[in-house]
Amino acid sequence: MTDGDALVVFTPSGRRGRFEHGTTVLEAARRLGVDLDSVCGGRGICGRCQIEVSDGEHAKHGIVSSQAHLTPAGELEARYATERGLAAGRRLGCTACVTGDLVVDVPPESQLYRQVVRKEADAHPIELDPVVRLYYVQLADAELGESIGDLRRLKAALASDWELEGLEADAQVLTELQPALRNGASAVTVAVHDGRTITAVWPGLHDRAFGIAFDIGSTTVAGHLCDLLTGDVLASAGEMNPQIRFGEDLMSRVSYVMLNPGSERELTRAVRGCLAKLTAELARAVEIDRREILEVTLVGNPIMHHLLLGIDPTPLGGAPFSLAVDEAVRIPARDIGIPVHPGARAYILPCIAGHVGADTAGVLLSEAPYLGDEVNLIVDVGTNAEIVLGNRDRLLAASSPTGPAFEGAQISSGQRAAPGAVERVRIDPETLEPRLRVIGNDAWSDEAGFAEVQVTGVCGSGIIEAIAELHLAGVLTTDGTIDGALAERSSRVVPDGRTFSYVLWRGEPELVITQNDVRQIQLAKAALHAGCALLMEHYGIERVDRIRLAGAFGTHIDPVHALVLGLVPDCDPERVTAAGNAAGTGARIALLNRGARAEIEDVVRRVEKIETAVEPRFQEHFVNAMAIPHDVDPYARLARAVRLPERRAAKTERPPRRRERRPSA
Amino acid sequence: MTDGDALVVFTPSGRRGRFEHGTTVLEAARRLGVDLDSVCGGRGICGRCQIEVSDGEHAKHGIVSSQAHLTPAGELEARYATERGLAAGRRLGCTACVTGDLVVDVPPESQLYRQVVRKEADAHPIELDPVVRLYYVQLADAELGESIGDLRRLKAALASDWELEGLEADAQVLTELQPALRNGASAVTVAVHDGRTITAVWPGLHDRAFGIAFDIGSTTVAGHLCDLLTGDVLASAGEMNPQIRFGEDLMSRVSYVMLNPGSERELTRAVRGCLAKLTAELARAVEIDRREILEVTLVGNPIMHHLLLGIDPTPLGGAPFSLAVDEAVRIPARDIGIPVHPGARAYILPCIAGHVGADTAGVLLSEAPYLGDEVNLIVDVGTNAEIVLGNRDRLLAASSPTGPAFEGAQISSGQRAAPGAVERVRIDPETLEPRLRVIGNDAWSDEAGFAEVQVTGVCGSGIIEAIAELHLAGVLTTDGTIDGALAERSSRVVPDGRTFSYVLWRGEPELVITQNDVRQIQLAKAALHAGCALLMEHYGIERVDRIRLAGAFGTHIDPVHALVLGLVPDCDPERVTAAGNAAGTGARIALLNRGARAEIEDVVRRVEKIETAVEPRFQEHFVNAMAIPHDVDPYARLARAVRLPERRAAKTERPPRRRERRPSA
Repeated sequence: MTDGDALVVFTPSGRRGRFEHGTTVLEAARRLGVDLDSVCGGRGICGRCQIEVSDGEHAKHGIVSSQAHLTPAGELEARYATERGLAAGRRLGCTACVTGDLVVDVPPESQLYRQVVRKEADAHPIELDPVVRLYYVQLADAELGESIGDLRRLKAALASDWELEGLEADAQVLTELQPALRNGASAVTVAVHDGRTITAVWPGLHDRAFGIAFDIGSTTVAGHLCDLLTGDVLASAGEMNPQIRFGEDLMSRVSYVMLNPGSERELTRAVRGCLAKLTAELARAVEIDRREILEVTLVGNPIMHHLLLGIDPTPLGGAPFSLAVDEAVRIPARDIGIPVHPGARAYILPCIAGHVGADTAGVLLSEAPYLGDEVNLIVDVGTNAEIVLGNRDRLLAASSPTGPAFEGAQISSGQRAAPGAVERVRIDPETLEPRLRVIGNDAWSDEAGFAEVQVTGVCGSGIIEAIAELHLAGVLTTDGTIDGALAERSSRVVPDGRTFSYVLWRGEPELVITQNDVRQIQLAKAALHAGCALLMEHYGIERVDRIRLAGAFGTHIDPVHALVLGLVPDCDPERVTAAGNAAGTGARIALLNRGARAEIEDVVRRVEKIETAVEPRFQEHFVNAMAIPHDVDPYARLARAVRLPERRAAKTERPPRRRERRPSA
Repeated sequence: MTDGDALVVFTPSGRRGRFEHGTTVLEAARRLGVDLDSVCGGRGICGRCQIEVSDGEHAKHGIVSSQAHLTPAGELEARYATERGLAAGRRLGCTACVTGDLVVDVPPESQLYRQVVRKEADAHPIELDPVVRLYYVQLADAELGESIGDLRRLKAALASDWELEGLEADAQVLTELQPALRNGASAVTVAVHDGRTITAVWPGLHDRAFGIAFDIGSTTVAGHLCDLLTGDVLASAGEMNPQIRFGEDLMSRVSYVMLNPGSERELTRAVRGCLAKLTAELARAVEIDRREILEVTLVGNPIMHHLLLGIDPTPLGGAPFSLAVDEAVRIPARDIGIPVHPGARAYILPCIAGHVGADTAGVLLSEAPYLGDEVNLIVDVGTNAEIVLGNRDRLLAASSPTGPAFEGAQISSGQRAAPGAVERVRIDPETLEPRLRVIGNDAWSDEAGFAEVQVTGVCGSGIIEAIAELHLAGVLTTDGTIDGALAERSSRVVPDGRTFSYVLWRGEPELVITQNDVRQIQLAKAALHAGCALLMEHYGIERVDRIRLAGAFGTHIDPVHALVLGLVPDCDPERVTAAGNAAGTGARIALLNRGARAEIEDVVRRVEKIETAVEPRFQEHFVNAMAIPHDVDPYARLARAVRLPERRAAKTERPPRRRERRPSA
């Protein structure tokens, strides 16, 4: 150590080193490999390298730190503070020089590879490392007779200032570079995609970059606009998938294309138009220019995936269910009609199998069962249920043909999850009277706040609860028959041809659970359960450590009811949780972290695909899973867990009560 | 050697080796590294591996060859012969197996890397090695439960059959792959660009691929459609550059853009429209589908280059003449509006300097002065003259502002080179009477066949010849004055204000060479000569080994007249030759040989750029070069070379003759 050296300790990394007096804090950070951001390359313009220095003795680090051990703010820093504001105690790391021992704190917003906060408490963190980065460079003025093109001068500056070598440039950069250099007084900011391609150029400093993660469901298309410099979700928007006019569910859309050759182009146009509309809506919501959106990621099931790309989905409609492309797709965003910056790229997550698409890849990336030892069962329910089972050692995936019943389709009073739809049901095992709650209102039907509510139908989770509750109340037998004998005890049970129905809501419209509705749900839940059972059998386990219910259905459904009905295999109810919109989250992770792309592409190739259609055991599991519940033993424990009356107890008590009530009916 | 071995000698390569009986000729060729083509990978479909075997003793090779030493044609070969025809003596190398000693001739059309014949006798050969190649593969049928996307199956087949690893695929391949597999019974042909990207797919065998080399001149845009499998030019077409409506010459187009900001888009649209029109015309001419055109290359001067790319050319109109991009540009062809296969790429040759563009890079590639020891002076004359000087050790380039006089502009009777334009002139030094020849007719004006010809104007080469001949005939003094005293001797010399003119053609219209016309040509030729002199001075030589005159002007002009006028520096007249449309040829070379791209990109970076505008010596050379000829000494030798009367002799004789004729005037 010489007299001119100072000890600098960076927090939170704890990295430390000795630096000559006069070294900038940014330079010290770089030499130590401390993550301190900078877009402008240390020119005091971007303000992303802000740091804080604490005064006083740091016993832990063994030094006395002082703000006075930095050179005072000079002209550059003063100008930055005036023009853009600098909080008290904050300094620009690129202009402040070391003159003595320091403990330098790098706040989260000054870290380049910061952690992105996720709402899901138990989710693994996302490290912010988007595939698009901004770089500011100041070019020397061109000299007459120099004969070096401006693009080459730009590349030379990016190589010397940012160590970016061998860059290519998009066409729009060729046309926009000279105006940008002129308007920026030879200083420009460029966007570099994947460390390889200059995709955008702006005059002077430009420190805004956005991306959209799209989740293309067969019913709903959602987009999440993210700030690529912070990782924050700034806005989300959803639209009905306009392909619905060609068919409510996936197979009817495929049938439409089969019957109308070439019509895949209409469906492609429809979904791309929807993405364009969402893009405009999101940009408007946060008041940015669409040209500031530099990257998009997309997930969707195989049919949505193929239609997005303009691929005829017909081969996905029949054996051998051949995907045209299962790898991740990297494509200019404009090629799929997304009106963002012309240099923006789209990344579509890989598909896993003919029935297990990029949406499941998104779920995998979000849930990351491949990182841990626990065996996870992850279920994403839609028209098909995509099921993933496994842990770091092994992953299996399958799709089970649940049909659209869980989405409220093919159910007499069914509707999509929308305001007015019944989503929660409780049935009193004594009176057999129901209590309801509908989407858009927090009050139960026996509470005052419910008076004004228009009840329009029953959504998927409402059906599940109604049927589970009917079963818990003894109205449904284990083979799924509505017990007509109860018509004597309750006016809710009414004859309907040769079977009976249960009147869930007496209003306009009247909502009834019919025997056929029960059958539809039985078929759907048997398919789901059979898929899970098949995967567990292949895996060689009888019990999973954890069940995650992904997607809108998984978010709304009560895990206990799912277990009561036998939708999913037996598991500790507290270990059955909703995963939220995991597919969309996966798209967001791929948007914010370039490494996640390589990760999911690798994981997807390792997944063992189980084709339920060719597995004879699937049919056996399916038949076995029709009963409610499929397995009686767990029921008692479940009932205790949710503090409902013991089912068998209720049964034994019922006959007398039934008789008691008969006179009053 | 075992009993089962046979000696196989391939001609013309001379490679030889021993092979087990039963080895196919194609396999033997591959093992020896003999260049034997195959698109279908040895499946007896494409017929590109045809070979011939001669019967008899080959003393040179020391073996007795016999057609009977090949297995007889089997079913595959018989089917090929029936369906597509097989000349007598020809066999398919992939089905014919070795059963004894053979001398196998690989005809040129069966060679993959064949030499492309060039019209220019002294041009270096082009090896056919286009950046786009076709590959045929037969895929195994997809199996249920396999879950491998068709694209991945295709890639696997390309890797195993053709050793193509790590390929990417264009968007259109994703949509077209499954229909192609279906229609081709799981066999497809793909186009692979640069060994990296699958850009096209066709069902079954597809062995046609085409490309266009475009040469974008400020006046004319030309396209040459080439067969990428043979290297042949199948059709050429030219169109007026529609940008002419925005300005005849380059600078007036730049001025138009300067005065009308944003109007570069109109000029870009105009030139792209022209390329589209030429593309359609060329495809129609050879009756191919535009989608079979898989690659285009383009050359043009910096302003044409920038406008093609949609770049505002204004910065090229003033110091420091900054190119937005000088590197070679690789871009999807559709991005510059060329209606070819959506996977086709465009390659635009690199620019050398602000005034020396991709056209000059094309000239360089075609002339390849960098391959030899001779010092070449290559001149491409247009509105500016691009000049390249050097050899393998060193190359210099400059642009000289000749103005449009050489193209017939700013000349009183001038017109573009088109039928009816005077292109050849001879003036009798005795009578001062001219003889003419016009474009589109082989007869001279004093021959019978000329009677019907409509003479419309004088093109650039006609002007040069007229002025050189006027000088040789003594009508023009060395300072460029039309000698009015001769009006007494010839009615061709007529007063025109304070100066005199020479009547070249008495007809409708009358064609006159005015004093101002002479001045314009003097200015142009002085600029050209000064540019050459400046480069020679920088190079440190006083004499070049060879002069090549490129472009339309260089093709039409008589080298002797160019030397008489002093357009180019002194050189042995036999070493002054026309290079033809060298820029277009360069584009064609880049189209047919991928290595040529790397070559020209490397060479261009090594060229030393001389900026005439900032070289004080340029002005000196310019002033010195105004005289006709600038240097008297070479004249005598030149005059001898072309068997014209000695100039000095003519001069000494002239006064008496002038006097003699005076009475008759």
